[in-house]
Amino acid sequence: MLTLDKVFNAQTVLKNIIRETNVVRAYGIANDCELYLKPENLQITGSFKVRGSAYKIAMLSEEEKAKGVIACSAGNHAQGVALAATKNGIKSLICLPDTAPISKVEATKGFGAEVCLVEGCYDDAYEKALELRDSEGYTFVHPFDDENVIAGQGTIALEILGDLDNIDAIVVPIGGGGLISGIAYTAKQIRPTVKVYGVQVAGAPSMYNSVKGGEIECLSSVSTIADGIAVKQPGENTFHYVSEYVDEIALVTDDEVSEAILALIEKQKMIAEGAGATAVAAVMAGKFDLKGKRVVAVVSGGNIDVTSLSRVIDRGLLNSGRSSSLLIELIDKPGQLKEISRIIADCGGNVTGVHYEKGNTESVNGCFLRIEMETRDFSHVNLITKTLRDEGFKLV
Amino acid sequence: MLTLDKVFNAQTVLKNIIRETNVVRAYGIANDCELYLKPENLQITGSFKVRGSAYKIAMLSEEEKAKGVIACSAGNHAQGVALAATKNGIKSLICLPDTAPISKVEATKGFGAEVCLVEGCYDDAYEKALELRDSEGYTFVHPFDDENVIAGQGTIALEILGDLDNIDAIVVPIGGGGLISGIAYTAKQIRPTVKVYGVQVAGAPSMYNSVKGGEIECLSSVSTIADGIAVKQPGENTFHYVSEYVDEIALVTDDEVSEAILALIEKQKMIAEGAGATAVAAVMAGKFDLKGKRVVAVVSGGNIDVTSLSRVIDRGLLNSGRSSSLLIELIDKPGQLKEISRIIADCGGNVTGVHYEKGNTESVNGCFLRIEMETRDFSHVNLITKTLRDEGFKLV
Repeated sequence: MLTLDKVFNAQTVLKNIIRETNVVRAYGIANDCELYLKPENLQITGSFKVRGSAYKIAMLSEEEKAKGVIACSAGNHAQGVALAATKNGIKSLICLPDTAPISKVEATKGFGAEVCLVEGCYDDAYEKALELRDSEGYTFVHPFDDENVIAGQGTIALEILGDLDNIDAIVVPIGGGGLISGIAYTAKQIRPTVKVYGVQVAGAPSMYNSVKGGEIECLSSVSTIADGIAVKQPGENTFHYVSEYVDEIALVTDDEVSEAILALIEKQKMIAEGAGATAVAAVMAGKFDLKGKRVVAVVSGGNIDVTSLSRVIDRGLLNSGRSSSLLIELIDKPGQLKEISRIIADCGGNVTGVHYEKGNTESVNGCFLRIEMETRDFSHVNLITKTLRDEGFKLV
Repeated sequence: MLTLDKVFNAQTVLKNIIRETNVVRAYGIANDCELYLKPENLQITGSFKVRGSAYKIAMLSEEEKAKGVIACSAGNHAQGVALAATKNGIKSLICLPDTAPISKVEATKGFGAEVCLVEGCYDDAYEKALELRDSEGYTFVHPFDDENVIAGQGTIALEILGDLDNIDAIVVPIGGGGLISGIAYTAKQIRPTVKVYGVQVAGAPSMYNSVKGGEIECLSSVSTIADGIAVKQPGENTFHYVSEYVDEIALVTDDEVSEAILALIEKQKMIAEGAGATAVAAVMAGKFDLKGKRVVAVVSGGNIDVTSLSRVIDRGLLNSGRSSSLLIELIDKPGQLKEISRIIADCGGNVTGVHYEKGNTESVNGCFLRIEMETRDFSHVNLITKTLRDEGFKLV
C-alpha cells in the first residue's frame, strides 16, 4: 500500500543520492497560463527514474542487498538502477537486448552496473532477467509497477509543492504510469484541489485506452519518437492509481512533441527527450483547460541521442519556415542557376544545397533544380517563391 | 572605481530582477578535474548580460531615469538592457543594424524596448545611438566598459563562492572583458588564492593580443561561431582589470567550441551558444593546468539560433563518426545499389541519403555513388568501408 509516509520517507532516503531539481518559470512557451517546469532532465542520470529505483533499493533487506539487483531496460531505468545500486554499495546487473545502442550500454556501465547483452529484442532480455532473478537470487527492480518505485517518484510532487504555492495543475508524461501515480497520489493527499493531468503519445496510448475502457489493455505495437514512454501495457498498481487520482489524460502527436522539444531549446536552453517533452507539448497544444492557471509541466528526461535531436531540429525548422526546399523546372540554357541564386540572395535567403535532377520536364532539354535554403519564416519563403515566379521561373 | 561594496550592493539591487543560477556539478565532460558549471545560459534573457545592465540602470539618477536609456547591440546586451529598463519602469531604445535577424529584433521588443533599425552595419547603429544620446539625453549603456556594468557581472563571483567551498579556479569567456573583469576582481578580493582564467576564440583574440602586447589592440576583423564574444577591441577599464587580476588567457578554436556545445547537450542537457561554451571548451581541450582541481566554468549564454545549432550538431556528428559519407565509384550495371544497401544494413549502418553523380570515372559507363549514413563511431565507419572493399567495391 502506498502511503504519504512512504513518500516522505523516500524524500529523506534520497537526499544524498539525487538532485533536488528546482521548479523554473518558463516564459514564451504557453501564452494563456503561468507555466513552470519541473526539470527532471537535469536530474542526475538525465531522468527522474533514479528516484524510484533508489528508494526501492534502499528499502531492500540486508540479505537482498547482499545478492544484488537486476533490471531490464535499454534506457533511463537502466541508468537509474545502476546509479542507485552503486550509491547503495550493491551489485546491479542490467539485461539489454544486443541491438541496444552502444551509447546506452556504455552509459549504463558508466554508472557501475554489469551489463548482460541478450540476443533478440526487449522481451527476450526481460525473460532472461527473470530467469537470472530466479536462479541467482537477484531482486528484480520493476521500472514502474512497484509501490516503492512509485513512492520514490512521488517525491517530485513534494518538491513541486515545496517550491511553489497555489498551483492549479501538474501535467505529467505517462509511459507505464509510475511517475504520474507517485505524483498524483502525493499531490492529491497534500493539496486535494490540484488537478493532475496525464499525457501519452498517440503512437502508444496504452494507459489512455485502458482508463477509457475501464480495464488494462495491451497494445500489439507502439511507434513514437517518445521511446521512453512507448509502453505496451500499464501496470496493475499504476492502472489503479491513475484511474483513481488522475483527472484527465490527453494524447499528443510526434509533431507536437517535436515542437515542444524545439521550444524548450529556444526558450529554456534545455534539452528534453521525446517522452520528457510530452507534458509541455500538451500544454502548448491546448489539450487541457489551463487558461489563467498556474501550471507545472514535468520534463521527465533529457536523454535524447544527438542524431534524433538533429532530426527533430531539422523537422522543426521545416515546420516553422526556417528552412525550405524549392523545386524549379528549368529549360536547359546557361546562366539560370546564376539568376536564381541572385534572386534568392537579394531576398535574403541563404542557399544550403543545390541539386540538378533530370525528370519528366515539359521540354526535352529541361531539368529540375532543387534548391535548399535557410529562411526566416513562411512569409520569407513566400516572398522568395513569388519573386522567382514574377521573374518567369516555373516552380513545381 | 570598482569596489567590493559596489558588487555587494549590486547583489542586493539585482535580487528581484535576475535569477540566481545555481552552480551544478558536470560529470563526463572533463576527466581530470572536478568540474562545475555556472549556468548563466539559464539566466533570464538567456545570458549574464542582464546583471550589468540592470545594476547600471538602477544606479541612474531620477533625472536620467526619466529620460531613458539607449544601447546598441544585436544580441544579449540588447535583451539585457531592454529587460532591465522595463523592470525599472523606464524607457529603453535599442539601435540595431537593419540586417539583424528578425528573431533578435522580436526578442528585444518582447522585453519591452523600442527598436530603432539603422541602415548599415553595427558601426552605423553605434553612431546613431551616440547621436540620439546627445540629441535626446538618453543615457548610453555600454556593453562592457563601465564600472557599474562590471560590478553587476561581479555578482556571479559572489554566487559561485556562496555555492561552493574551496574552489581552485574559475574559467570565464572573454569578449569585451566585462564579465571576467567583474568576476576576477570580486573573486580575488574575497579569495585571493583562486585562479581566474580567461578564454577567447582564435578568430577574435583582441584581449589576448592586447594583454600579451601590453597595450590595447584593435583587430581589423573577427570571424567565429562565438559571435557573442567577437569583439574587435577591449575597453580601457576591462583591459586594466584583466591585466591586473586574470592569471592566464587561452584561445580555443571554433571546432573546440562546437565539441563543447555538443558535450553540454549530451552530458548536461543544456544549450550553450558559441561564446557561452568557450570556457568549457578550454577545460575540455586542456588549455589550463587544472589536474585534480575544483573548477567552475562559466557558461555565459544560451542564445544560439536553431539553424546554427543544427550545423554545430551536424559537424559534431561528423567529427565523432556518428554520421559519415562514402563516395563509391560504380561501373554502370544493375543491382549495385541493392548490394551496397545490403552490406551497409548488415553492418548496422543507417542510410540517410543517396546521390548518383556523373564524373571522371575510370570506365565510360561508370558513375559515382554518394551514400550518407548514420553510424555509431569511427570504428563502425571503418567496418563498413572495409566490408565494402572486401566485397569488391571501389571507395574513393
